[in-house]
Amino acid sequence: MIKVAVNGYGTIGKRVADAVFAQKDMEIIGVSKTRPSSEALIANKKGYPLYIADISKKPLFEAAGIKVAGTVDEMIAACDVVVDATPGGIGAKNRALYEKLGKKALWQGGEDHEVAGFSFNSSCNYNEATGRQFTRVVSCNTTGLCRIIKAMDAEFGVKKVRATMVRRGADPGDPKRGPVDAIVLNPVTIPSHHGPDVQTVLPGIEIVTTALVVPTTFMHMHIVQMDLKNKASKEKVIEIIKAHPRMGLVRKGLGITSTAEIKEYASDLGRPRSDLWESCIFEESVSVSDDNELYLFQAIHQEADVVVENVDAIRAMAGEVKDPEVSIKMTNAALGFEAI
Amino acid sequence: MIKVAVNGYGTIGKRVADAVFAQKDMEIIGVSKTRPSSEALIANKKGYPLYIADISKKPLFEAAGIKVAGTVDEMIAACDVVVDATPGGIGAKNRALYEKLGKKALWQGGEDHEVAGFSFNSSCNYNEATGRQFTRVVSCNTTGLCRIIKAMDAEFGVKKVRATMVRRGADPGDPKRGPVDAIVLNPVTIPSHHGPDVQTVLPGIEIVTTALVVPTTFMHMHIVQMDLKNKASKEKVIEIIKAHPRMGLVRKGLGITSTAEIKEYASDLGRPRSDLWESCIFEESVSVSDDNELYLFQAIHQEADVVVENVDAIRAMAGEVKDPEVSIKMTNAALGFEAI
Amino acid sequence: MIKVAVNGYGTIGKRVADAVFAQKDMEIIGVSKTRPSSEALIANKKGYPLYIADISKKPLFEAAGIKVAGTVDEMIAACDVVVDATPGGIGAKNRALYEKLGKKALWQGGEDHEVAGFSFNSSCNYNEATGRQFTRVVSCNTTGLCRIIKAMDAEFGVKKVRATMVRRGADPGDPKRGPVDAIVLNPVTIPSHHGPDVQTVLPGIEIVTTALVVPTTFMHMHIVQMDLKNKASKEKVIEIIKAHPRMGLVRKGLGITSTAEIKEYASDLGRPRSDLWESCIFEESVSVSDDNELYLFQAIHQEADVVVENVDAIRAMAGEVKDPEVSIKMTNAALGFEAI
Amino acid sequence: MIKVAVNGYGTIGKRVADAVFAQKDMEIIGVSKTRPSSEALIANKKGYPLYIADISKKPLFEAAGIKVAGTVDEMIAACDVVVDATPGGIGAKNRALYEKLGKKALWQGGEDHEVAGFSFNSSCNYNEATGRQFTRVVSCNTTGLCRIIKAMDAEFGVKKVRATMVRRGADPGDPKRGPVDAIVLNPVTIPSHHGPDVQTVLPGIEIVTTALVVPTTFMHMHIVQMDLKNKASKEKVIEIIKAHPRMGLVRKGLGITSTAEIKEYASDLGRPRSDLWESCIFEESVSVSDDNELYLFQAIHQEADVVVENVDAIRAMAGEVKDPEVSIKMTNAALGFEAI
Repeated sequence: MIKVAVNGYGTIGKRVADAVFAQKDMEIIGVSKTRPSSEALIANKKGYPLYIADISKKPLFEAAGIKVAGTVDEMIAACDVVVDATPGGIGAKNRALYEKLGKKALWQGGEDHEVAGFSFNSSCNYNEATGRQFTRVVSCNTTGLCRIIKAMDAEFGVKKVRATMVRRGADPGDPKRGPVDAIVLNPVTIPSHHGPDVQTVLPGIEIVTTALVVPTTFMHMHIVQMDLKNKASKEKVIEIIKAHPRMGLVRKGLGITSTAEIKEYASDLGRPRSDLWESCIFEESVSVSDDNELYLFQAIHQEADVVVENVDAIRAMAGEVKDPEVSIKMTNAALGFEAI
Repeated sequence: MIKVAVNGYGTIGKRVADAVFAQKDMEIIGVSKTRPSSEALIANKKGYPLYIADISKKPLFEAAGIKVAGTVDEMIAACDVVVDATPGGIGAKNRALYEKLGKKALWQGGEDHEVAGFSFNSSCNYNEATGRQFTRVVSCNTTGLCRIIKAMDAEFGVKKVRATMVRRGADPGDPKRGPVDAIVLNPVTIPSHHGPDVQTVLPGIEIVTTALVVPTTFMHMHIVQMDLKNKASKEKVIEIIKAHPRMGLVRKGLGITSTAEIKEYASDLGRPRSDLWESCIFEESVSVSDDNELYLFQAIHQEADVVVENVDAIRAMAGEVKDPEVSIKMTNAALGFEAI
Repeated sequence: MIKVAVNGYGTIGKRVADAVFAQKDMEIIGVSKTRPSSEALIANKKGYPLYIADISKKPLFEAAGIKVAGTVDEMIAACDVVVDATPGGIGAKNRALYEKLGKKALWQGGEDHEVAGFSFNSSCNYNEATGRQFTRVVSCNTTGLCRIIKAMDAEFGVKKVRATMVRRGADPGDPKRGPVDAIVLNPVTIPSHHGPDVQTVLPGIEIVTTALVVPTTFMHMHIVQMDLKNKASKEKVIEIIKAHPRMGLVRKGLGITSTAEIKEYASDLGRPRSDLWESCIFEESVSVSDDNELYLFQAIHQEADVVVENVDAIRAMAGEVKDPEVSIKMTNAALGFEAI
Repeated sequence: MIKVAVNGYGTIGKRVADAVFAQKDMEIIGVSKTRPSSEALIANKKGYPLYIADISKKPLFEAAGIKVAGTVDEMIAACDVVVDATPGGIGAKNRALYEKLGKKALWQGGEDHEVAGFSFNSSCNYNEATGRQFTRVVSCNTTGLCRIIKAMDAEFGVKKVRATMVRRGADPGDPKRGPVDAIVLNPVTIPSHHGPDVQTVLPGIEIVTTALVVPTTFMHMHIVQMDLKNKASKEKVIEIIKAHPRMGLVRKGLGITSTAEIKEYASDLGRPRSDLWESCIFEESVSVSDDNELYLFQAIHQEADVVVENVDAIRAMAGEVKDPEVSIKMTNAALGFEAI
């Protein structure tokens, strides 16, 4: 059993904890939280030992009826692998602790590539993570781009990618961030940072990205265009997507044309937290032009798609399972996850 | 086993079907849908026989990979009780069919009181539904008002109620309805129809309501004020809420101050579809003034709170279980539902 | 000519500057800004001398093509009255400067009553401001409440007021603040601070308020209820509103039922920035019950209703115009403002 | 004086009426409305004679205090040119009337190209409209695309255009349409119809477009990419934009990164209804890659950019002014419109 600690039990952390908990070869030895909150209470309810960085706050937690197991340092000391899911920028500061305690650690895409020196995606470079001490699981958007680019590149060869990310403004549980009624260029400059981030996983790919933010809470929408090297067809592209363990097809004829309807569908499927671990590619949008340009829309659940990647990264770093397909299958099966 | 048919497998219907399916004394003999859609596909996946009103559309369903079991008339003929969850106004037109086939039927709050001649809420008038052929489960907003008013009236006596409903604009899965950026008075006139609707369940209550619509998707928010007859206290009100099987308390100290955070909490609790069957009353908002006026905020999940009421109504109409408390406990237990 | 400086040329400040500029007895001697921005550029375009607090930033402004006239201290020294429209909390810190320079100053509702020791509303207590050094113009919500309460109290006597404020989440030009999809209780506790704030202007009034925030950008909506002392009628209430220089009636029959449609109407009327300086009361909502309770909906433009109050406050403080009605007429006429 | 009738005094019609009214060589002889509404009242206030299609409704208008001048047929009979700004699809049905009365007519982009057989953009094909009886002014999105494509093509030669339109969900004054919290693919299929629509104005251009809808009310955002034939540079592109009478540059350094801030800026500039008749191109976004690909973001005010095109189209059809530059200058000057 791989002993996993989740440092930062928030949007990503709590999902990774549940996904790890479901794996037969892993166990959750602790999660951490900085303030008493509904999430801290949930950790208690789920039976995940709750650790806090600042032990002087223990009485605050107890006043809110929340049990504290100890300090974050104690939690890290007890684990084999720590998943750092603290807010962007904090993770880098935690690196010294993980190094001092000699622990394997993985960070999220909110941190720079340099924090780990290696950026991970199960479908692209699982093997390179074997036995590593430090790994960074790329962001939700980068994960979504890597999956489809890698799959297309493997089959047709990708000459160039142009992609636009229409991003959600705030997570569903966040009542503070906006915008309320605006389209925000983020960044205003072109290209955005997403292209170079894809290249940390897929170094040879030429890619130009743009990004903007809109007032929604659930899923980013990608408009993806690729110049392909070898002759492709709509049918072949769809076939590849169908066969991929982490890409799903929003089927034609079911009336789904928006992120709202995908979420409802995930909810109807009984997915925990309506999570969509897979990239959701709209079947009707897939098109291949006469000059061999591929276009498609894909929706990416910002809270969920990296969760399964985290699980695979843990397994790869632990070193027992060498075959990415085996790990992906194990991860998916433990979650009862079959792509839509 | 009470044989239940759900006519209209949409937002409410699909939830009622799942809740009925979970009951030990009930079974789902069929659900209906007018068009092939993701929800129709889900009915198939769940194993609920799918019936359609217009059998000539069967090939359309089959083309979308959806199996059809027969016609709605056949479904109704085979059931003991039909839950009509068709869109507002359609239900009334279905009455003739239910009468012709001599079936017990219950409608939702989108229909007028007159469709059934009796309006239902488990906590208020379960007993009056025993053995009835026709019953109407009141709307989500009316259900939320009835619960708290009845509970306060039983303890303190209610002289007058003033309530404002800040309503969500569209359900989470609906990408068509607005508003995008507006507060809409609906109706512009004061009082709104909600007060009289409460009186169909609680005839003696004096109540004035106002209602408006805002650009959110999850939960209505009620600002409830009551002039009480007998001396009340904040502590006693909270105690009553805590003890109520269908009212929950958003606890102080967990940082929840919005509908977004309640939903996240429901999601974290593992509730199917993040459903909140209970009225969610904010502990910190509960206040009793020197002149014995009670104030509180309660959030009402528009898709969910009537679901458990529907289950109780079925049971009451079937006539076996005479005690409301027994039915409520059975319903809640089968869903693993313990109010927050 | 009253020499007016506007310290803080933002949402309120820029509107006050334009309104002051339009008055025959006032002139704008300067406005201030902390950063080069589109608003600073606009000040230049309008010919308002632009002052900055930190003169070392002058090159930054010049690099953006914006001309700087001098320091804020110089601006204050040159004025008769300073309108402090800096962000909430900053204004209080500026008090020392105004005192040192012996200048008359007025603050906005984002500051506490204590900053000035006197809280102002033209229709309620203009006379008490005559010749004062320091005055605070109450917030947009409090202004809206004061207008209607004072008018009703004068005619019918007000026993008690209960009001709910459904507030906009972010101003139209602000792409950062949320919520995106949530109703936020702000505060969660009842009553909110708005009641006591009304009492700073109308000390004898009994009032209980509640407040929440929704994802819109334009106008707060008030649900106002009053227990009246003397017999009232809908017709009389409407007549009073029609006669009031700062309250407008959203007329029945024009199809306006939302804040979006009021804004469109203001825009169609040619109002600068679609500003609604008046409280917008929905004719159809006005109702008086048998037990003499008044109900109505009023929409309050958060960016605009205090602007005309600021102008009157300046005039009152300057001391020349003693009659509130005269000042109100002067202010309105200079803006071409006739209530809808 | 060209006698202009505006059939359909709504979002576009009322703006065209005001813009026509401002022209020295044109006059408004009437506008039409189907229902008494705030817009009908505004027509009265502005002194535009108001005509109605169904004269039997005259009492309804009069009851709302709105004066009716006569029937739509009478209005058309009295004009030289009719601007049809009725809702999409209705315009085509009005063609017979215009033909029967032998009037020049122009339609909006909601109608198909075939309604007029000629699609218009001032900067692209003004000359071809000279003396025509029927013309169609293309939609706001197509107008925005045509302006930039034509300008780039004239200078560099355009090989191929790829553009994504992130569209607003509802107009600011519309409280009914959504979405509330969703990104909607509209259409789901790729390419969207915008590309072929551009080709009605610029027949030789190769263009692929995609489109989606988000919950905002003000401005569409275009992500535009072009493969250019001749070597371009960022500086040259910006220079061309600056020189164009209908394209404006959102200047770097003023802190504008969203549609909300552009609107605020338009509002601060004193633009009527905050209208942006120009395409708003973000200076910082303009980039030209080594392989001569141009990228930029442009925001398009859906209610306004076609208004000035309508004015030019009227003038072109009337036949007096043959030079597009002369007409564009006349139109802009009369509105006091200088691109940002």
